[in-house]
Parts: sequence; structure tokens; C-alpha cells
Amino acid sequence: MILSGCGVYDGSEIHEATSILIALSMRGLSYQCFAPNIMQHHVVNHLTGEEMDEQRNVLVESARIARGDIKEIGDFSAETFDAVIFPGGFGVAKNLCDLAFEGAACEVHEDIRKVILWMVKEEKPIGALCISPAMIARVLPQADVTIGQDRSTIDVIEAMEGVHHNTDNCEVIVDEKYKLVTTPCYMLDATIAEVFQGALNIVDEIIQLWNEK
Amino acid sequence: MILSGCGVYDGSEIHEATSILIALSMRGLSYQCFAPNIMQHHVVNHLTGEEMDEQRNVLVESARIARGDIKEIGDFSAETFDAVIFPGGFGVAKNLCDLAFEGAACEVHEDIRKVILWMVKEEKPIGALCISPAMIARVLPQADVTIGQDRSTIDVIEAMEGVHHNTDNCEVIVDEKYKLVTTPCYMLDATIAEVFQGALNIVDEIIQLWNEK
Repeated sequence: MILSGCGVYDGSEIHEATSILIALSMRGLSYQCFAPNIMQHHVVNHLTGEEMDEQRNVLVESARIARGDIKEIGDFSAETFDAVIFPGGFGVAKNLCDLAFEGAACEVHEDIRKVILWMVKEEKPIGALCISPAMIARVLPQADVTIGQDRSTIDVIEAMEGVHHNTDNCEVIVDEKYKLVTTPCYMLDATIAEVFQGALNIVDEIIQLWNEK
Repeated sequence: MILSGCGVYDGSEIHEATSILIALSMRGLSYQCFAPNIMQHHVVNHLTGEEMDEQRNVLVESARIARGDIKEIGDFSAETFDAVIFPGGFGVAKNLCDLAFEGAACEVHEDIRKVILWMVKEEKPIGALCISPAMIARVLPQADVTIGQDRSTIDVIEAMEGVHHNTDNCEVIVDEKYKLVTTPCYMLDATIAEVFQGALNIVDEIIQLWNEK
């Protein structure tokens, strides 16, 4: 799992990230967390929504979700892992790429871009929740993805020449050519139980893709 | 749910807190997060385990887990809510009380103490995961609790005249006199799926206590 900090407004969405780990563990799969060793774009006070006069590191804050067991993204190898999953959160759009500021013209962090392309080359599945599919669409041309039904984000994906499919809570879109599976989670007005079910559906679709091989 | 920060080493354990919210949502129950508006005892770098030269606020950091929807503990009323649940994490033993430093002689934050005693007076259930049962045992004399099998923590609970019951992963101890339900979660060497199942079992025991009324 690739993290982007710890907290929906400036890092990884905590419920989505935790739901992925629970789902993997329920299916008897082991996991390793990764994050880039870079400073966060900014720090947001999650009580008030205001920016704080602080600096925090993406890897160090992501370690909170990983209980300390996390590695730098540069140490990732697509030969070692059978799948990669991205939870959502504004950290994806602020730290892993600059989608939140540049929209369809955004640049994806070089190590993240490398991970995505390497997994495709190895023909191994990628899962992406919430806003992450928009970042993936920037790297993989004509990717079939979903972020739910948010019109402005769909416009951005289409401007990247991504192919967006509207979905409801817990639904998964499978792009067979890239082995890419996506689901909206908190990009819709979901309950946390629906977020968890979405994460479980992503893991089950990844298992399905392994079985089809 | 009462939070104590965001991260196992200086706040609430994120997987336990998220698991409680998923379990409540899966059972169709609504929830409200609370935390005290106080400074954390300290800030721990979760990558290295070392203390950082920073100060963070318990309520502000807890808001990361609550996605901003959190209230000050002083605004809690036992007349409004049907149950209270405490996840674990060192924040319980460092911010909500000083158990990590004072052991059996620890003092519990006045507002937390008040919440626990008020729920008992109203005969409404309290759930506690991981290390939280040790804090509750300090407030409720002769409480039947479990924190798993950790001998040094059991010694502390027994020095407080709490009654400890050894348990394995996901097992719940029910104290009928206080309507108190406890489970070990990460106080044992649990997988995250076992932590989630423990949280679900706590919620189901609380529902059972409501039905017995």
C-alpha cells in the first residue's frame, strides 16, 4: 500500500487506508506500506480546516497508519510484490502529485510514476480508491477508472483522456488492459461501512485478476 | 468514541479506532467522536520511535481520525449517548491519564473520569480496547477487565484492585455490574483482521447489553 501522509486533508484518508489493510488481512494476504520521503505540501488543522504553520514529512506521518512498519517508495520492487493499492485522501493530490493545483496538467512524483508503470509492465494488479484513480489516469493513457460521480473531477480525468465510468457506493471498475481496479469510497457521500466494503471489493477483484492469469 | 490523538505511540491506535467506527456503521449505529482539548504528552516519530521536538494538540490530531467531525470531551452528555467506546494506543496512557508513567497510582483526566462515572450512573455500556481497560480499572473499583496476557500490565491492574481475566485474540470480557466490555486487540500480537473482529465483538456485546435492559 502506498501512503501519502496521515489524514484526509493533507495526507492519506485514514479510514480508506485502514480498510485496505483489514481487507487484505481478512483474505489472508500480507502487506508492506510504502511512502515517499518528502515534505508534505502543507499541514491542515483537521478540526478547523485551516493551514497550520508547521512542516511534516510524508513518510514519517504515514508511519502512523503503518504502526512504524513502512519503507521508502524508492525501495519498492514490482518483482517482489503481487499488487499495489493506493488509498485516497488529499495527500494523493497534494503530495504524490500536484493534481489539486494543476488539474489535468499535473505532474506525478517520479517514484510513484515508476511504481505504476513497473506494475503494468509486470502485468500485476493496481488498486486505487477515492481520488487516486485520477492520478493513475495521468500516468496510464485511456485508463478505465471511476471516482464516483463528481463532475469537476470527471472533467479533469477526461481532459487527461482517461475514460470515466459513473459508479455508486462500493462499485468497482476493472480495466483489464492495465489490470487496474478502482472504486469511489469517500468521493461519494459514503458511510465508513461502505468505504470498508469498497476496499474489500477492490481486494477481491485483485484476487480475481490473479486467478485469471 | 473517545480519542487521545492520532497514532499508536503518542495518540489513539488508528486501526483500533477505525475498526470501531466500521463496526458501528456495519451495525447501523451512528457515532460522534470526542477528545480532550489538551496538548499531547509528547510527539513520537512513528518511523524511528524517537521523541520529536514538536507540540501537538490531542483534539486537533484526533480530528484526523474523525475527518474533522469531533467535539471537546467537555461537551459530552451521558444522557444523549447510548454507549461510549475507548480505542487503545499510548495516547490513552499518556494523554487521557498518566498510566504510562505512574502505573497503578495514575491519575485519570478529570473529564474522562466524569464520562466513565456518568455512563455507569446512567447504566449505559462502556467498551474499551487494548490498554484502555487499565485506565477504566483505575476509575471503577473491582472492574472485571482484560488486556490480554501482558504480565506487567496485569500487575498494574491488580494493584488497582481490578480483576483481570486472560484472553486470546478477539475475546471479550463482560462486567455486568458496570456494563463494561473489554478486549485486548494490539495488546496481543494480533493481525489487523483480528483487531477488527475484536472491535466488532465489542459492538455486538454492547448491543447485547442494550437488549438485556
